[in-house]
Amino acid sequence: MSHNTFGHLFRFTTWGESHGPALGCVVDGCPAGIALTEADIQPWLDRRRPGQSRHVTQRREPDQVKILSGVFEDERTGGPVTTGAPISLMIENVDQRSKDYSDIRDTWRPGHADYTYDAKYGVRDYKGGGRSSARETAARVAAGGVARKVLGDAVQIRAALIQIGERRIDRSRWDWDEVHRNDFFCPDAQTAELWAQDMDAIRKAGSSVGAQIEVVVSGVPAGWGAPVYGKLDADMASAMMSINAAKGVEIGAGMQAAALRGEDAADEMRLGADGQPEFLSNHNGGVLGGISTGQDLVIRVAIKPTSSIRIERRTLTRQLEETTVSTKGRHDPCVGIRGVPVAEAMAALVLADHKLRAAALEA
Amino acid sequence: MSHNTFGHLFRFTTWGESHGPALGCVVDGCPAGIALTEADIQPWLDRRRPGQSRHVTQRREPDQVKILSGVFEDERTGGPVTTGAPISLMIENVDQRSKDYSDIRDTWRPGHADYTYDAKYGVRDYKGGGRSSARETAARVAAGGVARKVLGDAVQIRAALIQIGERRIDRSRWDWDEVHRNDFFCPDAQTAELWAQDMDAIRKAGSSVGAQIEVVVSGVPAGWGAPVYGKLDADMASAMMSINAAKGVEIGAGMQAAALRGEDAADEMRLGADGQPEFLSNHNGGVLGGISTGQDLVIRVAIKPTSSIRIERRTLTRQLEETTVSTKGRHDPCVGIRGVPVAEAMAALVLADHKLRAAALEA
Amino acid sequence: MSHNTFGHLFRFTTWGESHGPALGCVVDGCPAGIALTEADIQPWLDRRRPGQSRHVTQRREPDQVKILSGVFEDERTGGPVTTGAPISLMIENVDQRSKDYSDIRDTWRPGHADYTYDAKYGVRDYKGGGRSSARETAARVAAGGVARKVLGDAVQIRAALIQIGERRIDRSRWDWDEVHRNDFFCPDAQTAELWAQDMDAIRKAGSSVGAQIEVVVSGVPAGWGAPVYGKLDADMASAMMSINAAKGVEIGAGMQAAALRGEDAADEMRLGADGQPEFLSNHNGGVLGGISTGQDLVIRVAIKPTSSIRIERRTLTRQLEETTVSTKGRHDPCVGIRGVPVAEAMAALVLADHKLRAAALEA
Amino acid sequence: MSHNTFGHLFRFTTWGESHGPALGCVVDGCPAGIALTEADIQPWLDRRRPGQSRHVTQRREPDQVKILSGVFEDERTGGPVTTGAPISLMIENVDQRSKDYSDIRDTWRPGHADYTYDAKYGVRDYKGGGRSSARETAARVAAGGVARKVLGDAVQIRAALIQIGERRIDRSRWDWDEVHRNDFFCPDAQTAELWAQDMDAIRKAGSSVGAQIEVVVSGVPAGWGAPVYGKLDADMASAMMSINAAKGVEIGAGMQAAALRGEDAADEMRLGADGQPEFLSNHNGGVLGGISTGQDLVIRVAIKPTSSIRIERRTLTRQLEETTVSTKGRHDPCVGIRGVPVAEAMAALVLADHKLRAAALEA
Repeated sequence: MSHNTFGHLFRFTTWGESHGPALGCVVDGCPAGIALTEADIQPWLDRRRPGQSRHVTQRREPDQVKILSGVFEDERTGGPVTTGAPISLMIENVDQRSKDYSDIRDTWRPGHADYTYDAKYGVRDYKGGGRSSARETAARVAAGGVARKVLGDAVQIRAALIQIGERRIDRSRWDWDEVHRNDFFCPDAQTAELWAQDMDAIRKAGSSVGAQIEVVVSGVPAGWGAPVYGKLDADMASAMMSINAAKGVEIGAGMQAAALRGEDAADEMRLGADGQPEFLSNHNGGVLGGISTGQDLVIRVAIKPTSSIRIERRTLTRQLEETTVSTKGRHDPCVGIRGVPVAEAMAALVLADHKLRAAALEA
Repeated sequence: MSHNTFGHLFRFTTWGESHGPALGCVVDGCPAGIALTEADIQPWLDRRRPGQSRHVTQRREPDQVKILSGVFEDERTGGPVTTGAPISLMIENVDQRSKDYSDIRDTWRPGHADYTYDAKYGVRDYKGGGRSSARETAARVAAGGVARKVLGDAVQIRAALIQIGERRIDRSRWDWDEVHRNDFFCPDAQTAELWAQDMDAIRKAGSSVGAQIEVVVSGVPAGWGAPVYGKLDADMASAMMSINAAKGVEIGAGMQAAALRGEDAADEMRLGADGQPEFLSNHNGGVLGGISTGQDLVIRVAIKPTSSIRIERRTLTRQLEETTVSTKGRHDPCVGIRGVPVAEAMAALVLADHKLRAAALEA
Repeated sequence: MSHNTFGHLFRFTTWGESHGPALGCVVDGCPAGIALTEADIQPWLDRRRPGQSRHVTQRREPDQVKILSGVFEDERTGGPVTTGAPISLMIENVDQRSKDYSDIRDTWRPGHADYTYDAKYGVRDYKGGGRSSARETAARVAAGGVARKVLGDAVQIRAALIQIGERRIDRSRWDWDEVHRNDFFCPDAQTAELWAQDMDAIRKAGSSVGAQIEVVVSGVPAGWGAPVYGKLDADMASAMMSINAAKGVEIGAGMQAAALRGEDAADEMRLGADGQPEFLSNHNGGVLGGISTGQDLVIRVAIKPTSSIRIERRTLTRQLEETTVSTKGRHDPCVGIRGVPVAEAMAALVLADHKLRAAALEA
Repeated sequence: MSHNTFGHLFRFTTWGESHGPALGCVVDGCPAGIALTEADIQPWLDRRRPGQSRHVTQRREPDQVKILSGVFEDERTGGPVTTGAPISLMIENVDQRSKDYSDIRDTWRPGHADYTYDAKYGVRDYKGGGRSSARETAARVAAGGVARKVLGDAVQIRAALIQIGERRIDRSRWDWDEVHRNDFFCPDAQTAELWAQDMDAIRKAGSSVGAQIEVVVSGVPAGWGAPVYGKLDADMASAMMSINAAKGVEIGAGMQAAALRGEDAADEMRLGADGQPEFLSNHNGGVLGGISTGQDLVIRVAIKPTSSIRIERRTLTRQLEETTVSTKGRHDPCVGIRGVPVAEAMAALVLADHKLRAAALEA
């Protein structure tokens, strides 16, 4: 019952604060014999890395991952493979600018976890949000890189940003390749251009904005997940809601399932060209009764706007005095953008765990 | 890592199938010395009980709960109190109509877990859905009755139906007392009347419809919950998504958080009349950084339409033959209605667990 | 983190008190498709049942187990098989003699958990020890019956009593068949006769005596278990020490490993007649580095004498008055005897869990 | 269900191999506001450090611990205090002598985990035992230093070596101060001298020898622990058996409880001079029904002889060829000596967890 561990058979524990010397995670339960080097993990971290466009935080962190344990030379290939031992991953914090934090040291920033951490712990690492900082998600992305190796190539995990502020993409223009071409992981090139304009205005206004991420996973066989409290969608909901600033999670039709009729929601089945079962629609997002159907998993997450904004907001000090606060730091005006690789990583981590859980029942 | 257990310190394990002799749960981790009789649990079951209006299933189940263990006479009052031992609760199935199930025995009902259970287990209890039946939620509601006793009167957990199909309530007419007066747990009397008409039409058409539930919890102190993977909202998301037919979960602004600006989403703080911190809005639904703020918790769940409908749907048999299926049984045309007491129970169960987890840190 | 649950993938939760209406357990994580009826479980309970000789308690409990959930008719055989759903097992208490407990209601019986339960919970079910009664072990034995089905015939779990009081068996006369012929699960017929005399004297003196149990498991393949904190022997130690009145656990050479030299303790290896690895000795009891070697697992447990004796002992009342107590009830003069099937069950439960955990890594 | 994590509320996860760049642990669940610096942890590591006498391995490791996360300046004292966030501790491996391991690369060393790791994982880090090396216990000792801070000064945890080979201490000469004066953590000065002679002979012979450790904990209040599967003694048994080379665990009378009569085993109670309950003996080692009595906890662990010896032993290669092996490295001839601080650490870790678990029930 750890507060910093996620997963059951395949599980990881993260540690580290925004402005400490390093952050990292321990990945436990990884099967042995899987080829694994830092080069398998680094590309995912690079996608999440700050400072890659004007639309994200300008903090400069190389986010170089080091593998400290859990791999050893393979007797056949000579290259490193997992040994079944825990994999310790570490990322050094490089750009912890020694700025003066005295202005927020005693002030609860609205929308942040400052007040609640103080209420819970009575002590708070105020430098960059400490443990509540989104820098913790770098450790998730690193662990997610290992999870992808466990899942193998058969399972493809992709995510895209589908909404920033009130502007949603046009799904008819969805192009997965486009996701890699713009600054927003946006699958719709035209919307990406409009978002760039929107974001410039928002940044200029010293404000921030929310977003929605959609994760699509192909290649999950029917039969992963479990009934009642080990449901694949319940675990996905927990995983996604644990991402900083997440406020909503949807599977398939999501909140709009309320508006459906039974004849629409219940995805019909027919035989495919290959003689195998085929669904005629996917309102259930690839999960029925908590267990995967073999269809694409479709998950959406809503990310609220960054709470660190230049616009002045009313708040209190720890000494219960009324005051105002405005943030000048290097913050993401839309934290949802860099949330895309994080949501992918969480999906990978849930699925690697469920792959192992499914295998256990083959005993 | 149980598939049928929920919670950490305060936890419960449910068992039983729709058409077996009984169902029940074991509640473990309940502190000692709490007065507890069946009368503390039965009223919550009565709210969920089938057959209470024409808008829900006509199955006749008294759902009488029995306490089989975990209580003993208090030396002062003589009445039963919890002893710290596991509390075993049992509800007998009475109305397992011995109807002929041969028509669905080999057919995967669309929208149900029939296909996925077969894919996972290779064997399936086809009578009334077996373990995947919503009858399992009776055990949750019973366990939730114990959770409420752990929370005490200071924490008030209420839920209401806020949408059926495309018709949403008018929030300006919200009246908690009204929830107890109509067949829909609807806080808006006028909408309740329209829903009754909607439901009659849907039932007549042999169809079904989805719904949204809103849970509001008052009296949770600031400081419950935990960072990163033990977040109060992540646990709520998992709890709510584990309810049969749930497809989406929202905290506070929920999916609409995407459309907000930072200056709106970050709830400002001021001193209240009592000299204590007060929030000026609640877009975060009472949770920041995974920890309660002391405001009302606000959680919404979307429930898809019942998959058992009279309208004929295309599907497959276990022998991979194309066929159609239509359901004649006694089913809820809107399973979201009876989901209201279930969502309340899940909220109580999460909170009782977090109350104990918070206390542990006072060590 | 339940106090009444054991295991990870294959796990069970027990409930019930000595003098309540019933006791039972929920077995979760059992793979689907395993033939299971009450007749698979009952024989193990029958071995543990009280009243079978003059050397054990005379309480008369038929200990008939009922399966309340988790099985369904197999489509091929028509007989019941597990479905993957939780298996609820219940045993009714029949002979809860309504004797007058007022004499021990306020007295802490020495050697029992009376004082510690009071210290922990402030309330105590004093009837027959409540939750701390060895009747709880009936639920373990029932769950163990399911575990044996998961393990299959390849894994053979046997236990014997090897010491009562100061008298130890002569290992040169070890005969597994003899275990079923005497009242003591003793593998040495001559010692069994002497124990009968010893026990008659002890019973007559109103005293009780301790014992040692040895569990031997054949057929466990090399590779079950796990490093560091999931060690097979660490889990066995926890399982055995959780048995009522257990005070010591040994694997292989056990406490006497202290007296060994390295050249004796390190079991040598050679090729067997079948060309497979063979160990020349088994000082390590079938476990190296927490993982099974493929040899017999050898585990010993020491069980202290029953604390309920006729001989008068000094103690305190709950009101902190000095007093004495002597027990007249129907108690086992050597609780270790009926501990034999319990120790077997715990070994089966640990191994079923590790079988599934090993399978998970084959993912 | 991690294989490298121990504990529930207060828990730690270890990582690292004998010859990797570093090893460490993540301690999670530590309450906030506890003063903690590296100086609180280092002294415990220093006691376990290799190379401190001729009787232990000559490997030279400074074992300097670094705290990488989880502490922050206290607003009152300015010194570092725990924040409730996970505490990452790291120890660099300095003396991983780049010796030639080609001789054992393909050979299963008898008594080691080489064969079982190969059976389980199919890949094995053969350098110094990899993950199965006793170097992993440095991480336990570091985590134990944090656990002691959680327990505070009221709980005193001490351990001593009471047997090496066949020579046991004379308990009448027990002197806790003496433990710090000799190379063996021996509480009996005369026996320590004899052990020095014994060890010189054993080392000269190229052999090794087993030992027994006794842990005594004072100051644990009555009421820690839990019934049935969360028993304090069951958790201690698991913790101690998880130590490398442990083969037996005893609580109180231990294996000798078998030889006791009921009137001896059931510790009587009387009022102490302070009017509080007092036990007249401690055959139960401070635990009844899995819950602490308030007496000293008394736990013993047997540690088998080091398996790495100069004496030639028969074994197999991975290619299933018969061979012999003898070890020339820098090994502890009695690994039980340095096991003393490890056993203390494990006791501290179990107790810190149970302290928090007990507090949770005060909710």
